Amino acid sequence: MGVEERRRQLIGVALDLFGRRSPEDVSLDDIATAAGISRPLVYHYFPGKQGLYAAALHRAADDLVSRFDEPREGPFGERLLRVVKRFFDFLDEHGPGFAALVRGAPAHTGTGGASAVLDGVREAAYERMLAHLDASHNPPPRLQLVVRSWVALAESTARVWLDGRRIPRSEVELQLVHGFVALAAVSASHDAEMAGLLARVLAGAPSDGPFGELAEQLGLLGAGAGGAAGGYR
Amino acid sequence: MGVEERRRQLIGVALDLFGRRSPEDVSLDDIATAAGISRPLVYHYFPGKQGLYAAALHRAADDLVSRFDEPREGPFGERLLRVVKRFFDFLDEHGPGFAALVRGAPAHTGTGGASAVLDGVREAAYERMLAHLDASHNPPPRLQLVVRSWVALAESTARVWLDGRRIPRSEVELQLVHGFVALAAVSASHDAEMAGLLARVLAGAPSDGPFGELAEQLGLLGAGAGGAAGGYR
Repeated sequence: MGVEERRRQLIGVALDLFGRRSPEDVSLDDIATAAGISRPLVYHYFPGKQGLYAAALHRAADDLVSRFDEPREGPFGERLLRVVKRFFDFLDEHGPGFAALVRGAPAHTGTGGASAVLDGVREAAYERMLAHLDASHNPPPRLQLVVRSWVALAESTARVWLDGRRIPRSEVELQLVHGFVALAAVSASHDAEMAGLLARVLAGAPSDGPFGELAEQLGLLGAGAGGAAGGYR
Repeated sequence: MGVEERRRQLIGVALDLFGRRSPEDVSLDDIATAAGISRPLVYHYFPGKQGLYAAALHRAADDLVSRFDEPREGPFGERLLRVVKRFFDFLDEHGPGFAALVRGAPAHTGTGGASAVLDGVREAAYERMLAHLDASHNPPPRLQLVVRSWVALAESTARVWLDGRRIPRSEVELQLVHGFVALAAVSASHDAEMAGLLARVLAGAPSDGPFGELAEQLGLLGAGAGGAAGGYR
């Protein structure tokens, strides 16, 4: 194998192991064994576990960001649901490694760059969302807050879901899409510009799509809650 | 001054400086000057900037957690709003230091323990929320997800707000409280147990409190959105 080919193989092997176990629990010996080469030879290609971890991290981040690609066609809610499904595909493939990554880089692997890589992924998610909302140019502060909040929500939802997977994946995916409308709706209830944006997004939603469904449910809940609150008038 | 008294003074001085500038931009000389003692004397009490930063971090975390204290009396929405307001008081006092903390510990101050401290604060917030929702004992997975999601939302909202403060503080505070109902409402629309819990929380809410207001607005929005989606039927 050539140098680049061998490096790619080792990164692939490392990613596979980090995907099944937490990075702290994977040794260079494990990686060497899985790759079918000696431990000294691994050192020939990477300056220790830290370098290999960093390279694997970058490849995983590139992989994740590539799953955000989605044509700007059709209703927003359905685009978002497709991206969220691909995000969960990624979690299924890289689960424990992702959990370790968002938990913060493990101290003894000494990867201070991990949080910068993670920030890059968040930024990419944020920018794609704005593009799909046709608001890349000079987005209003309240929209920035809603989109950044939603990215944080996606991250924490992934973290909680990975810890035991006690809620069906399809339910969590749909809930995350609905979570975006809910956060936008709260912002819209405080601000006319956000109300206009939400109306535009919902207006394009077919009634049997993920947003149409929620709109109906919010209406029902709103009516129910209004009734409950009304009892105190 | 006695040793403990001097340590407390230095932590106080450090917190004050970290509150106004990012920890990376505060030197031990700055701290010594502000405390009116020599740099070598600072070393006598703390093993360098890292030790002082860690001590300041722990005190700030204790301070923040103490602001979560709230009697379990009266409507949930108003309790939550009071806690959120105290959280923003904390942000006003410790802004830049908090932003640096949630951004991750700066690499060259080498505080690997910062993320553990931060996790402790998140855990405290999570447990207090469950207690106020009368669900500390064996909380259902969907409620765990909603509460952890909301804690992440509070954190990311604080981070975005601190970066320029372009949205009025009182609006962001109320939005965060409304954000909890919105996330719970989405979960309730997927699950009967969550619907029961939300109904219980909203039933206790006076119509002129933060939740009564949102219930009304969700009703209006639900109606509006339902209409828009209905156009596609």
